[in-house]
Amino acid sequence: MDHPKSVVRTNGHVSVAHVTDAWYVLSTARELAERPLARTLFGMPLVLFRAGGAAAALLDRCAHRNVPLSNGRVVDGDLECGYHGWRFDGGGRCTRVPSLCGEHPTRPVVASFATREQDGLVWVYATPNLEPAHEPPALAPLDGYAGVTRMVEAQGTLHATIENALDVPHTAFLHKGLFRGAGKTNRIRAVVTRASDRVQTEYIGEPRPEGLVGRLLSPSGGIVTHYDRFILPSTAEVEYRIGDENHILVTAFATPVDDFVTRLFAVIRFRTRFPAWLVKLVLDPVAMRIFSQDAAMLKRQTEAIQRSGGEHYMSTEIDLMGPQIWRLLRRAELGKVKPGTSEPDPWRREVELEV
Amino acid sequence: MDHPKSVVRTNGHVSVAHVTDAWYVLSTARELAERPLARTLFGMPLVLFRAGGAAAALLDRCAHRNVPLSNGRVVDGDLECGYHGWRFDGGGRCTRVPSLCGEHPTRPVVASFATREQDGLVWVYATPNLEPAHEPPALAPLDGYAGVTRMVEAQGTLHATIENALDVPHTAFLHKGLFRGAGKTNRIRAVVTRASDRVQTEYIGEPRPEGLVGRLLSPSGGIVTHYDRFILPSTAEVEYRIGDENHILVTAFATPVDDFVTRLFAVIRFRTRFPAWLVKLVLDPVAMRIFSQDAAMLKRQTEAIQRSGGEHYMSTEIDLMGPQIWRLLRRAELGKVKPGTSEPDPWRREVELEV
Amino acid sequence: MDHPKSVVRTNGHVSVAHVTDAWYVLSTARELAERPLARTLFGMPLVLFRAGGAAAALLDRCAHRNVPLSNGRVVDGDLECGYHGWRFDGGGRCTRVPSLCGEHPTRPVVASFATREQDGLVWVYATPNLEPAHEPPALAPLDGYAGVTRMVEAQGTLHATIENALDVPHTAFLHKGLFRGAGKTNRIRAVVTRASDRVQTEYIGEPRPEGLVGRLLSPSGGIVTHYDRFILPSTAEVEYRIGDENHILVTAFATPVDDFVTRLFAVIRFRTRFPAWLVKLVLDPVAMRIFSQDAAMLKRQTEAIQRSGGEHYMSTEIDLMGPQIWRLLRRAELGKVKPGTSEPDPWRREVELEV
Repeated sequence: MDHPKSVVRTNGHVSVAHVTDAWYVLSTARELAERPLARTLFGMPLVLFRAGGAAAALLDRCAHRNVPLSNGRVVDGDLECGYHGWRFDGGGRCTRVPSLCGEHPTRPVVASFATREQDGLVWVYATPNLEPAHEPPALAPLDGYAGVTRMVEAQGTLHATIENALDVPHTAFLHKGLFRGAGKTNRIRAVVTRASDRVQTEYIGEPRPEGLVGRLLSPSGGIVTHYDRFILPSTAEVEYRIGDENHILVTAFATPVDDFVTRLFAVIRFRTRFPAWLVKLVLDPVAMRIFSQDAAMLKRQTEAIQRSGGEHYMSTEIDLMGPQIWRLLRRAELGKVKPGTSEPDPWRREVELEV
Repeated sequence: MDHPKSVVRTNGHVSVAHVTDAWYVLSTARELAERPLARTLFGMPLVLFRAGGAAAALLDRCAHRNVPLSNGRVVDGDLECGYHGWRFDGGGRCTRVPSLCGEHPTRPVVASFATREQDGLVWVYATPNLEPAHEPPALAPLDGYAGVTRMVEAQGTLHATIENALDVPHTAFLHKGLFRGAGKTNRIRAVVTRASDRVQTEYIGEPRPEGLVGRLLSPSGGIVTHYDRFILPSTAEVEYRIGDENHILVTAFATPVDDFVTRLFAVIRFRTRFPAWLVKLVLDPVAMRIFSQDAAMLKRQTEAIQRSGGEHYMSTEIDLMGPQIWRLLRRAELGKVKPGTSEPDPWRREVELEV
Repeated sequence: MDHPKSVVRTNGHVSVAHVTDAWYVLSTARELAERPLARTLFGMPLVLFRAGGAAAALLDRCAHRNVPLSNGRVVDGDLECGYHGWRFDGGGRCTRVPSLCGEHPTRPVVASFATREQDGLVWVYATPNLEPAHEPPALAPLDGYAGVTRMVEAQGTLHATIENALDVPHTAFLHKGLFRGAGKTNRIRAVVTRASDRVQTEYIGEPRPEGLVGRLLSPSGGIVTHYDRFILPSTAEVEYRIGDENHILVTAFATPVDDFVTRLFAVIRFRTRFPAWLVKLVLDPVAMRIFSQDAAMLKRQTEAIQRSGGEHYMSTEIDLMGPQIWRLLRRAELGKVKPGTSEPDPWRREVELEV
């Protein structure tokens, strides 16, 4: 096996880690209204509802005859099953059994999951019946920025979906003309640094993007500052500054629906020379087109991996983030990273690439 | 685990019993005409046909090259395969091999199942190549009653489907207004008794049902006598007397198509103040509406059980029949109940409930 | 088990052999044009493309992130992945990694399969990364014959599909009136002979077929010479001479798409009294009708076998080819037949049948 130095062969496993001592976004605050919501996390069926205003999450299975509670309704802040009318509060305690004259159980009989409502998102802790020792990540305040939140779903592992979101080389190829790769290429430098819970790539020397997105953001050109970040367990962040006047920060929280389906709740915040409504009007369809190209590719990748019984990846030195993301997910799954903490790491890598 | 006394937790198995030394209804006599019928019993593909008038049942697989015999046709009372034209009689004996000049096998080469035609139903014994030691259950004669037979299919285990058919509390909730639960509730007494092959609940003190069904049956009110019965292996019976003039007896024979699909052949017989055609006209759509609500719930229950890898049931003292039905099915599967016999059992339970 | 002598019971396995030191047809030469073709062989996803004119076949999985290469395109004779734009030549060597400034791997990183283009067909060797020791079978030249090539797909094992193609008794039953069986039957003799890599049945005494096909081919009647042949690993051949003026030779190469799906690339060559265009015009719809009846039956047979967990076949002495074909496939799979060779075998069987 005489690989050139820039090639590393990944073995044939599937890059799926179950980091369950962690918070994940299961819905926006807005979509969780009067009706219970059925959601899936790590393959577990959950039901979200508002227990007297506060978001609550239970295992989506009635304690009595196991029908999904999400087919029921919320009555006086309790969740009522649609089959026999048993009711449960936000802690999974049974509060009513219709027709029963004897005692009914009042202790928790349905598994419950800690929830938080923050930044317009509903966070759920992935381990049931536990009060978490740390809080979900909060968005850094950005005063005077416009913002929009979008949910998209991909048929890919959390790892493949986040690698795709933070991978630069494919943008010049798969999204040619929409994003990068419309004109001549440029040689740029990438500096990868990391901490115990994160990895970041800074791209240096990148000119204003030539594609449609670039022309819209900064018609006058300018210096580009570009960071891609992954933060355990599931935050993917892309930050762009183009000249002084444009700053865009996309913070995407990835949710493992199951091993091969991942949702991204992306909070996009920006400041440009243009009115926010105009930027949204123009960029939304472009972003959706880019995502649909990515989603189609992730689906094909997943099907090929499942057909092969595992990943048979080969990476080169410009696969800057994928192997790093996997290393972090794997360490988190093994308990080698304390949730909600970040320790320094002197590791550093610098690579040139042509985009 | 400090359960109140009224709560019993079922462990996480699936309540599926394979009681195969037993008769099941596979079709009505009417639908078994000139064309062979493909049916499934305990997951086994069967073909029903008329061998010179008499109903016959074979494994639905040609002895030669295994294609389903149900795609063939009946010729001179034999079933002819559609591929090479091999023919079989009702005992699974080969009677013809086209093109063959040498001998063909004349002994049984396709598994056959004992059949009986009775009360307009075709019964099949679930163990092949065996003459059963007992006969299928016959309907008690009810002179002067009107009758109708209906087949419905639910995506539920035989146990879940029969429990649903004989469960009172859900009727006041899931079928509210159609059946029970339209007005104020009443406290009634339930007396559960059993024999070696059956369990019965008598409801005492039940007023005339408040819902639509009740108003139609007995506009003048009156004393209600109500029994729910399960008889091994698969008979669910509901009997109502309202006043002197109304008597309704629903005898439903359940057929395990496979572990999670159950058919009910329900024979409904009744005597009321109204002409039979009017009762049928009014009650048929109501009954079908009730069943479609139950079928939807059974489907959700089955999906949740399969997703969870088993049942995680919790019962209270008003789950009168479900645990008893499971006990009987399990005993029958283990051979602890002699098929077709009924021994006394002094066991008795009395419970109050609010409906 | 007192079987008559003409009956042999096959045990309950599935007749699937993986003969992988062999050539199979994956496409016609014509359909392999500018766009890559996704094909499946023994369940392996392959991609066919033209590497500078010559047919090439690779495992359909990019070495980098595993997406199917068949979703990409051919650029300068190399196959380019649609995700990051990696390119591969016909030998599976990586020729380009966009954006990469360092070295990329230049050795083969995608498994490749030997290919040949011959008789208008693209042949692929079923074992990757190997130069085969023998060549695919070539069609015997037949000067002055008209010819046509047809591809059909059946949901059957390779064994069941070839047995069906070479089985005479079912033609008089399943295809009654189209092929055989329109009038009275005739007693004919069948002589089965074999070599180490093949089996042949000669039918002696067969009159001109009574059905539509026969009337079209030889309106004046005449002596029929009829051979059915199977040649390892996957050639089924049917040869008819009717009188002096009609000669038809169907050579079908079977391709195991997976264990239960088989494609047939049939090369039909003929010489008759009629102009070739007229023969094609009349016979094509008849042949397609016959095949669609066979395909429907093979699908039912496969479903029944899968449902039963295996074949439960019973054969008689007129199942002349099926057991012989299985014997050869099994010997080939076990390496007892040297690929591309044919040794004499004195074995011989003679049987009478009525068609």
